[in-house]
Amino acid sequence: MTTNEKALQFHEQWNGKISTASKCKIASREDLAIAYTPGVAEPCKVIEKDPEAAYRYTIKSNTVAVVSDGSAVLGLGNIGARAAMPVMEGKAVLFKEFGDVNAFPICLDTQDTEEIIKTVVNIAPAFGGINLEDISAPRCFEIEKRLNELLDIPVFHDDQHGTAIVVLAGIINALKVTGRKKEDCKIVVNGAGSAGIAITKLLLTYGFDNITMCDKNGIISKDYEGLNWMQKQMTEVTNLSNATGTLADALKDADIFVGVSAPDIVSEDMVRSMKKDPIIFAMANPVPEIMPDKAKAAGAKVVGTGRSDFPNQVNNVVAFPGIFKGALEGRASIITEEMKLSAANAIANLVPDDMLNEDFILPEAFNPNVAEAVSKAVKDHIKPDGTNIKTK
Amino acid sequence: MTTNEKALQFHEQWNGKISTASKCKIASREDLAIAYTPGVAEPCKVIEKDPEAAYRYTIKSNTVAVVSDGSAVLGLGNIGARAAMPVMEGKAVLFKEFGDVNAFPICLDTQDTEEIIKTVVNIAPAFGGINLEDISAPRCFEIEKRLNELLDIPVFHDDQHGTAIVVLAGIINALKVTGRKKEDCKIVVNGAGSAGIAITKLLLTYGFDNITMCDKNGIISKDYEGLNWMQKQMTEVTNLSNATGTLADALKDADIFVGVSAPDIVSEDMVRSMKKDPIIFAMANPVPEIMPDKAKAAGAKVVGTGRSDFPNQVNNVVAFPGIFKGALEGRASIITEEMKLSAANAIANLVPDDMLNEDFILPEAFNPNVAEAVSKAVKDHIKPDGTNIKTK
Repeated sequence: MTTNEKALQFHEQWNGKISTASKCKIASREDLAIAYTPGVAEPCKVIEKDPEAAYRYTIKSNTVAVVSDGSAVLGLGNIGARAAMPVMEGKAVLFKEFGDVNAFPICLDTQDTEEIIKTVVNIAPAFGGINLEDISAPRCFEIEKRLNELLDIPVFHDDQHGTAIVVLAGIINALKVTGRKKEDCKIVVNGAGSAGIAITKLLLTYGFDNITMCDKNGIISKDYEGLNWMQKQMTEVTNLSNATGTLADALKDADIFVGVSAPDIVSEDMVRSMKKDPIIFAMANPVPEIMPDKAKAAGAKVVGTGRSDFPNQVNNVVAFPGIFKGALEGRASIITEEMKLSAANAIANLVPDDMLNEDFILPEAFNPNVAEAVSKAVKDHIKPDGTNIKTK
Repeated sequence: MTTNEKALQFHEQWNGKISTASKCKIASREDLAIAYTPGVAEPCKVIEKDPEAAYRYTIKSNTVAVVSDGSAVLGLGNIGARAAMPVMEGKAVLFKEFGDVNAFPICLDTQDTEEIIKTVVNIAPAFGGINLEDISAPRCFEIEKRLNELLDIPVFHDDQHGTAIVVLAGIINALKVTGRKKEDCKIVVNGAGSAGIAITKLLLTYGFDNITMCDKNGIISKDYEGLNWMQKQMTEVTNLSNATGTLADALKDADIFVGVSAPDIVSEDMVRSMKKDPIIFAMANPVPEIMPDKAKAAGAKVVGTGRSDFPNQVNNVVAFPGIFKGALEGRASIITEEMKLSAANAIANLVPDDMLNEDFILPEAFNPNVAEAVSKAVKDHIKPDGTNIKTK
């Protein structure tokens, strides 16, 4: 049976991959009187006077909404809310299994930016955090930004920041393996959607200063027509020489290629045109921008992909469960850039120095220490008084 | 320790009464490939083509949203969304423990009717049913009606219909105990909010035809000023002689009193003014309209309250878990009047004839047969082709 056939059978067997569970048994009238009426009125009254008490008495302290409008699901595109459910349930499963975070799928039957924002604000009281998922660009930028302004709980678009954090972690270790300094690196990011832009931003924050973005029409410059507002913003901080040209032009003498784009668009010649021992992250799924064996044959020193059947898989599951775990435990009201950098460093450090090599730059998804290490890294950047989490 | 103190301690101990659970373990790369990417794309694609397949592959088939805006919570009034959470979590616990139905609390940070409707429509894809809870009248009528028109899943305001179903079940058995026929009964319903109106409507549907509604200013007639639109509608089908007067006036020669109102507003004299062996449902909480011992002393034959420390507790938990269980299993798109009547009869029949007496007219909440019997009663009224569930 193929994986696809197994997956269908598996989903039919479980008939939904998550369930809700009562933490407490209700076996007597007294149980009922304490968990429900009349006793339940007591925590209600306390929360009415002190909204912060919701974190003591309700699921808000440890529950995340996985929110999608189904507009950009996996590689399937705009398949809508109902069809997005298996993915969002899967994400909820991963939150629980990898981070012991309760998560519930909320698939929205609207793709209107304002309505999405309003709906998420309206349902926020039950949740301690919002994980946005598979929402198309550029709406995802606006939705995340506005929700972070409107809500006092962290809102985190995993396709952007989860991916960016894991890529940065991989690059941190790839620099060690290839003996590079970030100051000297020329980076090309191919793909100017939500992931490409978030990766670029986080790499800039980390201290890389020479990044060129490309999309299917080549190098993105100030003269490129048809950019969305976020892509336009990126032309202020990338490609500072305002070069134009093709992806092949951009890759000449580059140190690092980061692809979140399309299959087979990087040739061996392009790899050969890069600096010696280049670093390649070819994350198009399921077929990468260049297959690892071809990239290696053309001189690539480190190759990462999105696939589990090659070394160096860039898998968000090493990031998001621990990030929300830490944010919830530390009562962060927002996930700051410092927390993201700290999480990336923690992920990189999960690969012990004596085991680090070109085929082992990222921890295994099933490494049981990942979520706790990432959670701690996030919590380290939350001050008890919350003063460092106000910048949005 | 008092019940209230225990309740606070209990809620702090559990820090939220429900959790989410993964039905499937994710212990290997293959598990991940089947439950998440790339395998998860398969059920997504099937649902995209055939939205009905969501019932095979996702939690939609067995998950209910418990939705409140916190505007009328227990006897606490308008305490808002956050403070309502302990109640909605408690309801989710009861759904699971009594009916094995997955339920998730959605507390809405808006009390605007249109925004509530839009928000619930937007989040509906994940759910197979919507249980509305603790939303103030008359907004609750409009919200339920509009949602039932807009959605293809059942929307059920439990404060209305759950209560009405259990009261009707109790009355069915009280008629047997007192040897009455429904055609001969004069009923007074005191309280013209959501519960009082729903009870009255269901009693009319069942076949009672002489019902008078009262509120704190007395008998509701066509001449009563300040009625909301739903109360006005009720004047067309109740109090057909258009009488005016006080609750005491209404109770003269009445057979049945149903109170969903305020403590201690029915006197022993009023009970004495009713027909012989009257039936009293005094459901104000925690202090009934008249205490059972006083009502009995004044001649009442059957007395029910909302309290667990007296006989004949009217407790919605014997209704809503089974109702949603049946509706979900039978794929009902709406809970019809027939289903409600059928559920009430099923609940009444759970008291065996040889045990039926004035102090045992309703089944115990912890009777393990309740949910299944109610579920079956609901399913009996869903035709496989759905033709009988279109009337809204």
